[in-house]
Parts: sequence; structure tokens; C-alpha cells
Amino acid sequence: REAGYITNALSDFFFKYETPRQVLVRNRRVGVVCRLIQLGVLAYIIGWVFIYEKGYQSTDTAVSSVFTKMKGVGYTNVDGEERVWDMVDYVFPEQGDSSFVVMTNYIITKGQKMGKCPELTEPRYLCNSDSDCERGIIERTGHGHMTGKCVGNTTKTCEVVAWCPVEDDHAIPDPALLMSAENYTLFIKNSVTFPAYGVKRSNLVEGIDNQYIKSCVYDPTTSPLCPIFRLGDLVQLSGFNFATIAKGGAIGIVIDWTCNLDYDQSECKPVYTFHGLYGNPNEIDMARASVGYNFRYAKHYMEDKQEKRTLLKVFGIRFDIIVRSVARKFDIIPTLTAIGSGVGIFGVVSLAILHILSGISKHTASQVGYSIS
Amino acid sequence: REAGYITNALSDFFFKYETPRQVLVRNRRVGVVCRLIQLGVLAYIIGWVFIYEKGYQSTDTAVSSVFTKMKGVGYTNVDGEERVWDMVDYVFPEQGDSSFVVMTNYIITKGQKMGKCPELTEPRYLCNSDSDCERGIIERTGHGHMTGKCVGNTTKTCEVVAWCPVEDDHAIPDPALLMSAENYTLFIKNSVTFPAYGVKRSNLVEGIDNQYIKSCVYDPTTSPLCPIFRLGDLVQLSGFNFATIAKGGAIGIVIDWTCNLDYDQSECKPVYTFHGLYGNPNEIDMARASVGYNFRYAKHYMEDKQEKRTLLKVFGIRFDIIVRSVARKFDIIPTLTAIGSGVGIFGVVSLAILHILSGISKHTASQVGYSIS
Amino acid sequence: REAGYITNALSDFFFKYETPRQVLVRNRRVGVVCRLIQLGVLAYIIGWVFIYEKGYQSTDTAVSSVFTKMKGVGYTNVDGEERVWDMVDYVFPEQGDSSFVVMTNYIITKGQKMGKCPELTEPRYLCNSDSDCERGIIERTGHGHMTGKCVGNTTKTCEVVAWCPVEDDHAIPDPALLMSAENYTLFIKNSVTFPAYGVKRSNLVEGIDNQYIKSCVYDPTTSPLCPIFRLGDLVQLSGFNFATIAKGGAIGIVIDWTCNLDYDQSECKPVYTFHGLYGNPNEIDMARASVGYNFRYAKHYMEDKQEKRTLLKVFGIRFDIIVRSVARKFDIIPTLTAIGSGVGIFGVVSLAILHILSGISKHTASQVGYSIS
Repeated sequence: REAGYITNALSDFFFKYETPRQVLVRNRRVGVVCRLIQLGVLAYIIGWVFIYEKGYQSTDTAVSSVFTKMKGVGYTNVDGEERVWDMVDYVFPEQGDSSFVVMTNYIITKGQKMGKCPELTEPRYLCNSDSDCERGIIERTGHGHMTGKCVGNTTKTCEVVAWCPVEDDHAIPDPALLMSAENYTLFIKNSVTFPAYGVKRSNLVEGIDNQYIKSCVYDPTTSPLCPIFRLGDLVQLSGFNFATIAKGGAIGIVIDWTCNLDYDQSECKPVYTFHGLYGNPNEIDMARASVGYNFRYAKHYMEDKQEKRTLLKVFGIRFDIIVRSVARKFDIIPTLTAIGSGVGIFGVVSLAILHILSGISKHTASQVGYSIS
Repeated sequence: REAGYITNALSDFFFKYETPRQVLVRNRRVGVVCRLIQLGVLAYIIGWVFIYEKGYQSTDTAVSSVFTKMKGVGYTNVDGEERVWDMVDYVFPEQGDSSFVVMTNYIITKGQKMGKCPELTEPRYLCNSDSDCERGIIERTGHGHMTGKCVGNTTKTCEVVAWCPVEDDHAIPDPALLMSAENYTLFIKNSVTFPAYGVKRSNLVEGIDNQYIKSCVYDPTTSPLCPIFRLGDLVQLSGFNFATIAKGGAIGIVIDWTCNLDYDQSECKPVYTFHGLYGNPNEIDMARASVGYNFRYAKHYMEDKQEKRTLLKVFGIRFDIIVRSVARKFDIIPTLTAIGSGVGIFGVVSLAILHILSGISKHTASQVGYSIS
Repeated sequence: REAGYITNALSDFFFKYETPRQVLVRNRRVGVVCRLIQLGVLAYIIGWVFIYEKGYQSTDTAVSSVFTKMKGVGYTNVDGEERVWDMVDYVFPEQGDSSFVVMTNYIITKGQKMGKCPELTEPRYLCNSDSDCERGIIERTGHGHMTGKCVGNTTKTCEVVAWCPVEDDHAIPDPALLMSAENYTLFIKNSVTFPAYGVKRSNLVEGIDNQYIKSCVYDPTTSPLCPIFRLGDLVQLSGFNFATIAKGGAIGIVIDWTCNLDYDQSECKPVYTFHGLYGNPNEIDMARASVGYNFRYAKHYMEDKQEKRTLLKVFGIRFDIIVRSVARKFDIIPTLTAIGSGVGIFGVVSLAILHILSGISKHTASQVGYSIS
């Protein structure tokens, strides 16, 4: 009896189904509108899902490696002391990272050694007696560890254990000492690997050979694929001007790899864009609060058995190379999903139209339509 | 004849369409339930798609540049030798990267030069005769290239070509020599550019001027926008304690830029969060396997025409500054898409409800409803 | 009267609704097909949305920190001068970054000092008289600042202010001097924190203890979780060969953290993959245009009160460690959304089937079906 009940229910489930009664309507205006809306939806689905969103393709982002190399020599003549600055001297760090600094100006403090000496003659370091210099207290922005003594002949300041003499960075050379940095060139080598497709690309694309590289300089219109950039051009393309950014600033270089691998992979080429990040004084509020980009750097040496150092306060332009990559290729799974969702949207819209039309046809169907079932 | 057939088919396609027969039902309870469900779906679509998911906006991520600067001076007094450590001495690398290390402890080996000397008196380097030191074999963890000789007076070890004398790093100073690092401050300058909207922001937002920066220290509740962080606070906010992380560890600083550019861009402000990555011994398994964060670093110099170096094994805290950015702004294309998908969902749900209701109305429609067509 | 109109409209809105007339059809073949299609759609929704796309889970990406440490000692014997290279000498930068270079070959130029000297005897620097060397012009690829003099005994070249003597990098040692780099080992420590779930993981997972680390070497099949990699293996796994990449190249190491946190978090383990980025000459076009990976590096020292430097042109392998992370965990919001969209798709397809079937049933319904309303 129970078995019979289940069999019955199953056969009901499989052999019966409900379907809405349809009315076949013959109406010129409504029919045309209905078909046009359907065509519009179809066009939208194909246009949007397939052509604009490329719903038939899967995507992958790249494993990327950036290597940079500066070329060019700077020359300074400070108080008759001729000096030349090559890439080893003006690029930090030295190993060709994707983020690096090119020195454009500096304050040099030679021959510092560990010892005791008076602080700078700035208001906050001034003192009248030893009691003004509490021993051991280290001012957050001071140069050393206070000994507790107040020293000096005319202007007395607290004595500190520090790298002596302490650096005085009040006079920043203006114009920047290494304005010639404008003519340095930057070579960018960028390799991208799309693991999902096993495709490996370099920004030295087809046609960018040794001969071309030796003579080319990047230009957004005439040489958009030359991987050699003049620093002055970079600054200008980012919307800044060299004289002010030489006091310290940052520029972002974006390498955009948007590749459609359904075409030949030689079509997959990089696009360079440049963004001034900070450094020009017309950025009103920022400029007021922060004084450009600078850091300190020391070269250590031994002299007369004592450790000494040459301290450089380096002002420079920081370059951040950012790789943005997305490759697309035909794939069966997203295609099916896109078709499915397209059919879904089409179905919904069609039914919605019919739903609305059935309201309109209330008044007309009884005259022109006829029942089918 | 064929032309007539095609014309016929076309006119059929355009002028005829099918629409389901509708039943207009008048039923209090079912009607109310039906409308309430529709209103619920509408509320869900508006609430979810538009308010929660912000479907009417396009998004962009930023090109970002981070520049850091440490301030503060450390002081050590080892065996009466006073020494001061400034940012040039304790920050690696020097140029203010977004990822850097602050030295908190060190083991110094002075005056190493290239030559031949015995290995450390550790079990694995011990030997009885020359045959125990096979020439040329370089132990993976050894300090040099074995010469093949077994040397030494009491405890014999293999001789190596190496930077001599070899470093002995068994005794790690405890507590860390530079515990004063707790009072160093970190200044973070972060510029973000959203290329799609041409919006440039800095973490030095409106109101963060030179005056404020000179005196403020970051505090999550009272000064959440001050870009100056006390190292001790950073460590504490990341859930670690300074005394243990001083042996070596890593902290992640996340700068979150989630901006709604439909408001004024001065509303676009960074939020800082801190994540202890490794370094505290209560991370049971990890601590057992790895001994914190340390690396070696050498200062080279010439003495008596010979190259020498001072080797430092540096223990420190590594800071990784990670910028997460997303800006949103009204855009017509996602708005249309969102409306489309909203209408789609609404349509599906409405039809589904009607479908279900038509089951319910089987029993009622014949009594209360009436046919429309 | 108006109030009555509104009340009427409202009661109409709430108490009346339209529902399509249903036809209950009893047809074996059509019924079975209809149900099978519905089951298929249901299976697709559950399989795709829930199992494949994991639509019931929310996702988070990690805050990650990578720390690297090289071990191993290189040995060179050039012209009888024995020298050993430890990690301090061959890794750039020294602090254990996620992107670093291991030196495999070098050209050394000792004792450079600032001064005046002739350029290299290359065609582009040759001159006959002073007029060939226009004063002050700095050739982009030259070594210094031209003084305007043409000097030399037999082969005359322009004189430059530069680090003298200028580097001659024409003879690249072949085979690479530090081929022993093949036996160096790389230790990678990678911590990831998923902030949304408060989960912290390290690549030193459960079972990777101090004992294991001391002896293990990574192998994709036998030791896939050992965090110690032999350089030779890395190069081979990335599809390159050591002898050619030693001239300069780049390898990407991807650490993939794809974690399902609905399982125990000890199941969340890293997977390492290796991608040769550039460096082997069978990459046809690239190899022609760029000469591997190299950079220059100087060690400064003082000799006889004069600043001197030892310049190294370093050829090496660059390693870029890239962490890709995504963690998933059950979350009520995406679950509801997935169910909603699943119901939506199911509804659409069901209605579409019925729509199609109503066409088929034109011919059959009138015989077997019966009207319900």
C-alpha cells in the first residue's frame, strides 16, 4: 500500500507538469514593440556580456619582475672641487630595484667620528648651565645622547655623545647641485609570466632589438615602446617640473599589460603611464606639511685606527614602478557561464515583457486573440 | 512564391506573439502576502545591490608611494665604550623604503680580513687529523672554504679560508642592547593617486600641518591621523611586547584607503591597522623552528693596504607597510547594470511567487477569480 | 471622495493580484524531459555556485611578510688570489628582502679615485685633437665629464673627470667565477595574517621543527614543505640551466596560500612554484636585446687621506618572492546571496522550459490536459 503510494507520487512527479495557458495575440503595434525590446535585450547581452566584459574569456594576472638601470654622469663643482657622480653614487639601492631613488641634491658632512661635541646652535638646544641639559635624556629630534654638560664659548648648547661634528642641514643648496640628472636615462626591463597560459612576455617586444635600444628614447607618441626614459621627460610627463621636484619628490611609473591572448601574443605589449605622486609645491596642503623626499646615508672608513664616516643628506626623486597585468583568453567554462546568464537575463526580460503585455492585451486579446488550449 | 512565404513568416514573427492567460484573483490574505514579498525583494535589491554593494559606483585602486623616516638616537655602553646609533646606523635600507628593518640588537665582529684561520670550536667543525677536513668541501653552514688542515692547540678544528677571525654568534646580548629603540619614532608619508578619477591624496590630510606634525604622536583614539608613530606603541598595537620582539620579529602596518569620492575628497582619509607577523614566543610552533629576524651586514675599510671589514649580525624589527586602496565614484555604466540586474531579480522572484500562488489559487480562483481573456 | 479613491486603490493593490492560468499536463515523455532538465539545472547550481565557486564562503587576502636568508660560501681563486664570498658579500640587499640578488659573477676594478684620465679605447671615445672632445658634453653612456682634451700616446681618447681608472667591462669571466652558488641554500620565512578571520600562518607549518629544518632540502615531491631551497634546484625547477643564468637572470618564486578555513587551519599550507622570468638565451628576441642582469656596486675607503673605491660589476640571479593568498570561510551573507541567485537561475530556467513546453503542448494539452481554473 505504501509502495503504491510512493510509486504514485513519483509518477505524478515525473509525468505531470503544469504549464501556463498561452494566448496567441495578433496585434501589429504591440507585436513590433515586443520583438524590438527582445532584440534590444539580445543586443545588450551580446554587446555587454560578450564584447565589453569579454565574458567568454578567463583571466590571469602575471608574475612580474622589474629590473632598472640608470645611465648618465652628473658633475658638480663646489668651491673648486670637481666631482663626478656615476650611477653607483646617485642610485639607491644599487641593485636595480623597481623602487629606487635618484639623488638630485645633497648636504655633505665629512669626517664624522664618535665622540662628544656641542649640539647645533638652534633655540631648542641652547642652555645657560649644566642643569638645562639633563643627562641621558635624548630629544627625539636631537643628534645624540646628552652628557649633561652645557658647553661653548659665546652661544652655549648642550653637549652630546654623537657622530661629531653634528650635521647642520639648514642651508639646502639651491638650485639643486645635480640638476644634470635631467639628462640621465632610465632603462626598464620588465618580464611578465602568465602562469595559467604559460605565456612569457618582456617589455623588449618584437622589434625592440639591440640596435634600436642603443639610440631610442621613450616618447609617448613616436616611441611608445622604447624602454629607455629620459629623467626630464619622465618628470614632465607626470605633470611636474624638474627644478622643484629636484628638492625631493616621487613619481609612479605604471606598466600596464592588458593582453588578449586570443590574438597572437606579439600583440601583447606594455603601455607606460606616469603619475606625479608628490614633490611639487602647488599641492597646497601637502607641501606645507612635508619637505619633499630626503634621507641620510653614510660612507664609513678608517682613519688613524678610528672609525669615521662621511654623512650625506640625500635629496632625490623616488621612482616606483608598478606593474598592472591582466591577460584574457577564450575558456569554455566562463563562456558557458556567460551564455547561461545571458539566456537567463533574456528569459527574465521576455517574461517580464509578456507579463506587461498581458495587461495591455486585456482590452485587445478578447477581440483579436484566441485561446490555444 | 518564396518571397510571399518569407514575408508571411516575418509578419508572423513581428505581428504575432504569445502571452499567458492571466487570472485576476481577489483574495485578502494571499494578496497581502504577495505584495509583502515583492516589497521585501525590492527592499533587498535596493539595500543590498545599491546601499551595501554600492552597485551604482565604479571602483579604482591607487598607484601608491610610501616613504618612511625614522627619528631618535640609540645609546649603548658596552664595556665602557660609549656609542650612539642614529638612523643611518640602525635603519636598513637607508633610503626610506616601505619595508625596512630597525636594528634592536647586534653582535659585532671587528677587524675581519681575508685569510686562513680555524673554524669555531663547535662539534661539527672538530677534527683529530687533516683527514677529517677534506680539502675543498664547503659545509653548507660553515664559515669558509676548508684548506684540508686540522689546526689548533687544545681543541682542534678544521682550518678554513675565510673572513678571519670567524664570527662567533653564540652569545646574544640579553636584554637587547638597543632597547631604547622603543622611543624611536617613525614618520610615514603615503601618497595615493587614483588614476581613473584623477584624485591625488596624501596621508598628510587637511589639518595635518607642519605645526601639528612637530608635536603629535599617533594614537588610535585621540590622534588617528597623526603620521608619526612611536615604535613602542606600534609593537603594542600589533599585540606583541617589545622585550621579546627586540630579539627579532616583523610587524605589518596596513594603510587602508577606502574612499567614497561622491563625497568631498577631503573625506578620503587613511586608517592605520597593525598586525604582528612574527616574533613573539607564544606562537608555539613557529618560535620553535625559527629564531626571529636577523641578518648580517658589513662595513668595509682599508687598513695597512689590506681590505678589512666590521661584521654586524643585526637583530631587529622588520616593518612592512602595506597600502590597501579602493575608491568608488558614481558611474552610469555600473548603475545601469545594477538596475538591470535588480529588475531581473525582481522579475524572477515575482514570477516565482505567482507560480506558487497559482498552485494555491487552484482551490480559490474558481470561486473568487474570473478569467480576463 | 479622494480618500475613498486612495483606499480603493490601496485595497486593489493589496488584495488583488494576477496569476497565469495553469494547465496540468499529463504526458510521459514531456514530463520526464521537463523534470530531468530541472534536476540538471539544480545539479549545475549546486555544483557550480556552491562546490566549484564556493559561493557560501567569504574571502580574504593576507597581510604577508617574507624574510629570506642565504647560506653557503663561495670560493674564487683568480690569479692565485684566494678569496671567499659569504652571504654578506654576495647577497644584495643584505637585510633579507623578498626580492634580492645572488652574485654569480663579477668584474672588479680596484682603487678608483676621483680625477682625470683618458676614456676607454672604444671607437666612440677616440679622438685626433682636442676639438673632437667638446668640453662639458657628457655622453650618455660615457664614464665621466669631458675636460676637452684629447690624450694618450698611441691610441688617443678624450680625457674625462671620472672615477679613475675607468672600468673596462669587456671581458666577462666565462664560466662564471662563482659557479659554486649552485650549492648555496635559500631559507624562506613567510608569515601571512588573514585579518578578517584573525588567522596567522607561517610557512613553517606544524611538523616543520628545528630538527627537520636542519637537514631538509626542498623537493617538489618528497619535501614540498621544507622551506630550504638549493639554488641549483630552484634554477632547474624554473626551467632554466645554471651555467647560462649565472650570466644574469631572474627567477620568480610564488608562494600560494589557498586556504579553506572551514577545515582546521593546520590544513592551510603553502605551495611553492617557480617561474623563470628571464636569463636563458633560448628566449630568442629578448636575449638579443638585453644582456642579462647586472648592476654596479662600490666599496668606498680612505687611503692616504683620499677617497677611493673598489667597483664591482655584479652579475647575478635575481629572486622575486611573490605571495599569493586567498582564504575562504563560511559566511552567512554570501551564502544567502548564492542561494538567492541559485533560486533565481532555477526559476528562470524552469519558466523558460514551461514556456517552450507550452508550445509543444499546443497539440497535446487539448487532448490530455484539463483546465484548473
